[in-house]
Amino acid sequence: MNNQYPSLLLERAVNEFAKLPGVGSKTALRLVLHLLQQDTATVEAFGNAVIDLKHNVKYCRVCHNISDTEVCNICASPKRDTSTVCVVQNIRDVMAIEATQQYQGLYHVLGGIISPMDGVGPKNLEIDSLINRVASGEVKEVIFALSTTMEGDTTSFYISRRLKDYPVKLSVLARGVSVGDELEYTDEITLGRSIINRTPYQS
Amino acid sequence: MNNQYPSLLLERAVNEFAKLPGVGSKTALRLVLHLLQQDTATVEAFGNAVIDLKHNVKYCRVCHNISDTEVCNICASPKRDTSTVCVVQNIRDVMAIEATQQYQGLYHVLGGIISPMDGVGPKNLEIDSLINRVASGEVKEVIFALSTTMEGDTTSFYISRRLKDYPVKLSVLARGVSVGDELEYTDEITLGRSIINRTPYQS
Repeated sequence: MNNQYPSLLLERAVNEFAKLPGVGSKTALRLVLHLLQQDTATVEAFGNAVIDLKHNVKYCRVCHNISDTEVCNICASPKRDTSTVCVVQNIRDVMAIEATQQYQGLYHVLGGIISPMDGVGPKNLEIDSLINRVASGEVKEVIFALSTTMEGDTTSFYISRRLKDYPVKLSVLARGVSVGDELEYTDEITLGRSIINRTPYQS
Repeated sequence: MNNQYPSLLLERAVNEFAKLPGVGSKTALRLVLHLLQQDTATVEAFGNAVIDLKHNVKYCRVCHNISDTEVCNICASPKRDTSTVCVVQNIRDVMAIEATQQYQGLYHVLGGIISPMDGVGPKNLEIDSLINRVASGEVKEVIFALSTTMEGDTTSFYISRRLKDYPVKLSVLARGVSVGDELEYTDEITLGRSIINRTPYQS
């Protein structure tokens, strides 16, 4: 019984929703029927919000973060420390670091990490533009804030080699036991590093 | 920090997704960023699928099921038994019963159930049109397939009173122990009814 939907229009909408990550056909149907119960203006606002985003979104020409303008709010802000650049994989990472309110420098969004298995090499990422930013001379420190995975480490390593002839300090996010973690459930590598890289106790 | 999104267009799209039932702002962001990575045609197909559905969807003028035509495929099918009408709350119930492949009659979609708490009375539902279908004389049996809740029972009772002067058989879905249920976890009312309404054993 392939013909399970009473309407082709409904089936098309459900199939579109079911393409979203983590959304199965039952959830998709529930979401579509929910939208169908809203008034026309609400449904148009929903549909047009994603279409407008795709048509009009810009990427900051300095850091490649999503932006409504040529240069994003962070790069354009006079309050930010332009000598520090934090290298991240995607804009969700920018938002996560911004949410901490602990960082006043700028960002550089690579748009991914080096992953030969997925066919992503250095040329597919915004690495050349990062080198150019450093070469321009204003950047004093580059912070690698990439995933703690083989791909993340490979990407940091590749960039560090490209930057080795520039007078720039390279650093990486501290790795250690997460706040709230219980020691016995912390993996050995993390625990080992956290002993080696122990910091002065502050009471 | 209200200004958490780097782009107003992004924020608008995320907020639209976050209005969907069961979708929080983190999931909404993940879905929107997923769409943003797709090509323009895919995003337009997604957005337009819901807008087209809302603009062009029809409701069958006989049974009020969602349909692409004036009369839905089920009501228009010559293979269906037009003397039996199954009364359901919404189109998901139609799809659930159709999926069993055990029912050959027609449906009547009320569009909800009587629920004074939610401000839904008989006048808000497709009850008059059901009475008219029965009054036209072709219907021999009306099956109540509503939720086994106070509201569902109230709705069945209300309709049964409206139909009491018509020569039509009224029936209701069998209630009993679900297939796969363990007896000790079955609630007392269901178990009690399943003893009273026991059926001949077929080996």
